[in-house]
Amino acid sequence: MLFQVEMTVNIPADLDPEIAADTKAREKAYSQDLQKSGVWRHIWRKAGLYENTSIFEVRDNEHLHEVLMGLPLYPYMDMKITPLCRHPSSIREDDS
Amino acid sequence: MLFQVEMTVNIPADLDPEIAADTKAREKAYSQDLQKSGVWRHIWRKAGLYENTSIFEVRDNEHLHEVLMGLPLYPYMDMKITPLCRHPSSIREDDS
Amino acid sequence: MLFQVEMTVNIPADLDPEIAADTKAREKAYSQDLQKSGVWRHIWRKAGLYENTSIFEVRDNEHLHEVLMGLPLYPYMDMKITPLCRHPSSIREDDS
Amino acid sequence: MLFQVEMTVNIPADLDPEIAADTKAREKAYSQDLQKSGVWRHIWRKAGLYENTSIFEVRDNEHLHEVLMGLPLYPYMDMKITPLCRHPSSIREDDS
Amino acid sequence: MLFQVEMTVNIPADLDPEIAADTKAREKAYSQDLQKSGVWRHIWRKAGLYENTSIFEVRDNEHLHEVLMGLPLYPYMDMKITPLCRHPSSIREDDS
Amino acid sequence: MLFQVEMTVNIPADLDPEIAADTKAREKAYSQDLQKSGVWRHIWRKAGLYENTSIFEVRDNEHLHEVLMGLPLYPYMDMKITPLCRHPSSIREDDS
Amino acid sequence: MLFQVEMTVNIPADLDPEIAADTKAREKAYSQDLQKSGVWRHIWRKAGLYENTSIFEVRDNEHLHEVLMGLPLYPYMDMKITPLCRHPSSIREDDS
Amino acid sequence: MLFQVEMTVNIPADLDPEIAADTKAREKAYSQDLQKSGVWRHIWRKAGLYENTSIFEVRDNEHLHEVLMGLPLYPYMDMKITPLCRHPSSIREDDS
Amino acid sequence: MLFQVEMTVNIPADLDPEIAADTKAREKAYSQDLQKSGVWRHIWRKAGLYENTSIFEVRDNEHLHEVLMGLPLYPYMDMKITPLCRHPSSIREDDS
Amino acid sequence: MLFQVEMTVNIPADLDPEIAADTKAREKAYSQDLQKSGVWRHIWRKAGLYENTSIFEVRDNEHLHEVLMGLPLYPYMDMKITPLCRHPSSIREDDS
Repeated sequence: MLFQVEMTVNIPADLDPEIAADTKAREKAYSQDLQKSGVWRHIWRKAGLYENTSIFEVRDNEHLHEVLMGLPLYPYMDMKITPLCRHPSSIREDDS
Repeated sequence: MLFQVEMTVNIPADLDPEIAADTKAREKAYSQDLQKSGVWRHIWRKAGLYENTSIFEVRDNEHLHEVLMGLPLYPYMDMKITPLCRHPSSIREDDS
Repeated sequence: MLFQVEMTVNIPADLDPEIAADTKAREKAYSQDLQKSGVWRHIWRKAGLYENTSIFEVRDNEHLHEVLMGLPLYPYMDMKITPLCRHPSSIREDDS
Repeated sequence: MLFQVEMTVNIPADLDPEIAADTKAREKAYSQDLQKSGVWRHIWRKAGLYENTSIFEVRDNEHLHEVLMGLPLYPYMDMKITPLCRHPSSIREDDS
Repeated sequence: MLFQVEMTVNIPADLDPEIAADTKAREKAYSQDLQKSGVWRHIWRKAGLYENTSIFEVRDNEHLHEVLMGLPLYPYMDMKITPLCRHPSSIREDDS
Repeated sequence: MLFQVEMTVNIPADLDPEIAADTKAREKAYSQDLQKSGVWRHIWRKAGLYENTSIFEVRDNEHLHEVLMGLPLYPYMDMKITPLCRHPSSIREDDS
Repeated sequence: MLFQVEMTVNIPADLDPEIAADTKAREKAYSQDLQKSGVWRHIWRKAGLYENTSIFEVRDNEHLHEVLMGLPLYPYMDMKITPLCRHPSSIREDDS
Repeated sequence: MLFQVEMTVNIPADLDPEIAADTKAREKAYSQDLQKSGVWRHIWRKAGLYENTSIFEVRDNEHLHEVLMGLPLYPYMDMKITPLCRHPSSIREDDS
Repeated sequence: MLFQVEMTVNIPADLDPEIAADTKAREKAYSQDLQKSGVWRHIWRKAGLYENTSIFEVRDNEHLHEVLMGLPLYPYMDMKITPLCRHPSSIREDDS
Repeated sequence: MLFQVEMTVNIPADLDPEIAADTKAREKAYSQDLQKSGVWRHIWRKAGLYENTSIFEVRDNEHLHEVLMGLPLYPYMDMKITPLCRHPSSIREDDS
């Protein structure tokens, strides 16, 4: 089941640089593990912004919640979540 | 070059049903041709809505403009357009 | 899987009264069938408004889409859709 | 009498972790007491967000006010409150 | 139990003048009956606008819903509804 | 001359508790003096919120400005101000 | 007593041109009479828009309401109304 | 050339009181000098708010920019700027 | 003196095609005359939208008003107008 | 390929003045280098505001992202980004 998740990152200017660097490193590792396992299907940077558009494939809403709450940068993020489904004009069977 | 395009379709209730059906059929054919040629990379329906989230791969802004203006349903659509680029956390080289 | 769906109904003033009455009757029957089958778990009227807050239990996003698109009043409705999950403070195991 | 209450929780990043943990524990106990007594009829987590949708059954507006003001996390919450009533299409007699 | 109701009236320019005049006359009679019975406690015109701020005293949400749905001008109105309660600084015991 | 004033109170979490308590006490006294003199005609709490809807009867805009600027909690308030007048449907001669 | 009134004019494209021309002529005469009598103190066009910013000097809210409701173009206008008072930094005693 | 400038003042609660008082005194002197020279044509307080509506007469956009950037309170202000011109219904030749 | 003008074009679907075509042709000629004379300094299409961003160089606000009101498509346009001035970081003396 | 970028600068009041001055100096140098190389085609100050409207000519979205992320003031800026293309009414071949 697919969800579009748009994330905006707002790291406070006064966050300790070491904590910031460590959190970003853990975020990257977390994201890449989920990409490899097929849960985080797509991630694109919005040009010129600390924002991304992502597509997740999860078992259900509960699974989506767990995955997002596990993001190391979650406390500094705003989230916009949209449930998706296959489009009738799509030529592909899988995630279109 | 990738763009996220979010389309909301508002077909007026008083549009002639034959014109509406014909326009939708041409829209579907137009979309599928662009999907086959790789320009319309993804199209997902937003669940419960006459809206879609699409990813286009185009040569440049001009190309995006031509592709969108050619949509048979364009006169009944609202568009939100966001330029995308590769995300540094992506594990994929292509469209991530 | 639960979704909160908030529906706002805008029936145009110039809709033929017979068509309006028939559509509302079919809407009510459609809603009650889905309530009996457990898909439309809750429906509340917002006091003073032609709006409702509903809770749906569906198999997945696709199922939600089909159920909502089947609403006889769908062409006259605005929809706000929110995926839900169990709350950690809930004392109930089912839909809380 | 039913009310829909949508709560968004914003715990400041610099809140003392012990105070935060204690407040959350008291919030959970408070919520569960009200669920057991039937006042807090439903509580759902919005997937991926620190937000919930709740349904309260209270004697009157005054009662609703007291119950919400008693929330240990109230100082960190935004509230959206909507009075509800039975929907004419509902098949249930109680809270639909 | 008190509710603040803010009403904005948008009578379409092409409404038959006789129907418009008749509807306004019925609206006025309906409002004055409810004022005499104490249900419609206050009504003020917003200066320069076809809008009013009203205070209703009703038994419950259901009662409020019935009263508002009975307004002859309801189809041409937008409504904003806010449940009220006594203010702790008020010097009055009744509706303050 | 009547004005509707909607006040939202945002006392910062880090305000010294003694100062906060003293300011609230002065606010209550100030409000009650104005209620007794007939200037602050009505004050209602919005259920579940640190907000109120108030009706002021003042000589003119200047008088309204002075009264509001004198509020001990003014620095922590957002204000929405609407000039009111008698409604043609009102059955009362005074403040309706 | 001074009020700032910002007016946006939306004359429908299908209004009979004679009615439109007559209404605009009456609007101009009405405005100039009020300017001569000192009630309509200032009127400025917002550059590039069918909008104006005006300053009215009226006896009270009721007077403002009557003046605005008398505008021949009122049915095609949106209004934003702001009560003004003398500014403590002003060097003038009268209207600024 | 005339501009409408709407200023909202947000002086932070923790600004040193001496600095605040000095800045306000300099703001008043700066404003009054510009009023005397005819650049700051009008200034009105919005009743009940730390906001003003002002009319400036400047040589060009550059001049407006310099005048506003020179405001001692500028760092604490939000600005809304609207270019104005003479209204065709105005009876006055100067700033109407 | 420079102004940024953002224009959104909404030609109604039921406009007579001949009138539409004629109006667009006159719009193009009008725009190109102003470009040649240096008044309409820049015009860019927003990709995928019937919107443009334009830069005008005019004598004053009055001149801007006349130029925009003369647009054949003006009745179908929404306008957002922003006065510009030279930027201190610009390396160019003219319109930068 | 052209992009319109609207930047709003919010330098926090408590930023160390030396750091602020140094960052602004580096911003200016960075901007002027990009102007000289033709990437930052235009920059205009919005009159009365710490905001600018800029036009960038870049190879692609990736290039735009790099250029904007390199801005020394980026952490204090909000960005609004719009892809542009040549307008059919433009008389110029290059950036119109």
